[in-house]
Amino acid sequence: MRYVRFRDDAGDVRRGEWTDDEIVAYPNEGSRFVATTETYDPDDVEILPPTDPSKVVCIGKNYADHAAEMDSEVPDRPLIFLKGPNAVAAHGDTLPLLPDKERIDYEAELGVVIGERCRNVAAEDVDDVIAGYTCFIDVSNRDDQRQETNWIRGKAFDDSAPIGPVVASPEDVPDDARVQCRLNGETVQDADLSLLIFSIPELIEEITTYMTLEPGDVIATGTPEGVGELSPGDTVEVEVEGVGTLEVDFEA
Amino acid sequence: MRYVRFRDDAGDVRRGEWTDDEIVAYPNEGSRFVATTETYDPDDVEILPPTDPSKVVCIGKNYADHAAEMDSEVPDRPLIFLKGPNAVAAHGDTLPLLPDKERIDYEAELGVVIGERCRNVAAEDVDDVIAGYTCFIDVSNRDDQRQETNWIRGKAFDDSAPIGPVVASPEDVPDDARVQCRLNGETVQDADLSLLIFSIPELIEEITTYMTLEPGDVIATGTPEGVGELSPGDTVEVEVEGVGTLEVDFEA
Repeated sequence: MRYVRFRDDAGDVRRGEWTDDEIVAYPNEGSRFVATTETYDPDDVEILPPTDPSKVVCIGKNYADHAAEMDSEVPDRPLIFLKGPNAVAAHGDTLPLLPDKERIDYEAELGVVIGERCRNVAAEDVDDVIAGYTCFIDVSNRDDQRQETNWIRGKAFDDSAPIGPVVASPEDVPDDARVQCRLNGETVQDADLSLLIFSIPELIEEITTYMTLEPGDVIATGTPEGVGELSPGDTVEVEVEGVGTLEVDFEA
Repeated sequence: MRYVRFRDDAGDVRRGEWTDDEIVAYPNEGSRFVATTETYDPDDVEILPPTDPSKVVCIGKNYADHAAEMDSEVPDRPLIFLKGPNAVAAHGDTLPLLPDKERIDYEAELGVVIGERCRNVAAEDVDDVIAGYTCFIDVSNRDDQRQETNWIRGKAFDDSAPIGPVVASPEDVPDDARVQCRLNGETVQDADLSLLIFSIPELIEEITTYMTLEPGDVIATGTPEGVGELSPGDTVEVEVEGVGTLEVDFEA
């Protein structure tokens, strides 16, 4: 099941399921009760982020080939950093690039969406707390990232965390799901989850040793080799097997 | 005016003003309408965090004497890091210490509470977006902080950001307000805001160059010299001139 949030023509926030070619909306609790099924063309509605995370917990250098391309060592424990709710952006958005920066990069990732409040989750129990998976872009401002102690200007700026377009159920996403990124239609990243240095269960156990995760929180699992520079007017697509494709544009 | 949130005997979340010795509650919009003024003894109610921030934006090494005691240079631009909502704790709480750590420290700070959504705020305009000030403790787990690239295990764990007990109006807090910390009754930090390396207007301008701040977000402005180690059973009080005293205990 691929869960989606969107805004309908009347301006109401709606929820539903994104099938192969249409969105089947749940009854609208907002303006009126609709008992019959309504369907929408995904191209005709504004897709919203499928979750409103209280925080986005990101992992750096979690693919060996990406660590190498960044001239970095593979860390001996997960490299964790945070983005706040201000960073979240949606499928279909046209995003600003921070002004006066020499290098802002795309990084395609799998996002894990948490389904229930949890702390101290053992690796073998993580299935209980995972609602599903989504596509994620870790937009990264290298100018500042390389200068600062914590990656805030570099990673936690507004719109630096596009997510979506859906949350796919765990059963729809294979353990070795392929993660691809296309820049203006050309494939620039292509890997699969079997290459993660720290597995999703290991990440959730480590993160929840220190912090409570809330329903809707997102864990971004790191990016594979092939990150690169964004230019004004670029289109980035991140496709995760079983989830679909998250597409955003950057302002021309 | 010193704004406070608390839970009353009936379990309702209430808001009001903390005068010298009592809380004058606003009419309760929850269970019933109360037109008359109700007052409470602050010692008889559960004080809640005075705000529910979407994020806590913290500043490191913003007093020269603290940078020196940490064997650090004074940074040439504000050192920014983040805590999520999971970190927030309240006046009067008894907080756990992370298990199996050799050194967890208190750091007393002034917190700035944001009053309206803002981005790209010029330093000369920050009065428009500041709701008031509060006391803040940046509880810091040095074991992990010293090992990790971003200070997540070190700074963003649950209950690492006690705030309160009130948000005091800007007119109640002098520009050179004194910030003190007492550990089990003994003064261990004592400084004033004139010693900040980066002023509050400079911090807000810098932060909002990169991120939108939301109403209720907190900026923790950094700690002065005198940070030190917490032990089980300790009591920490942070007093900010014009705000009052935030007190928390650590589990014995």
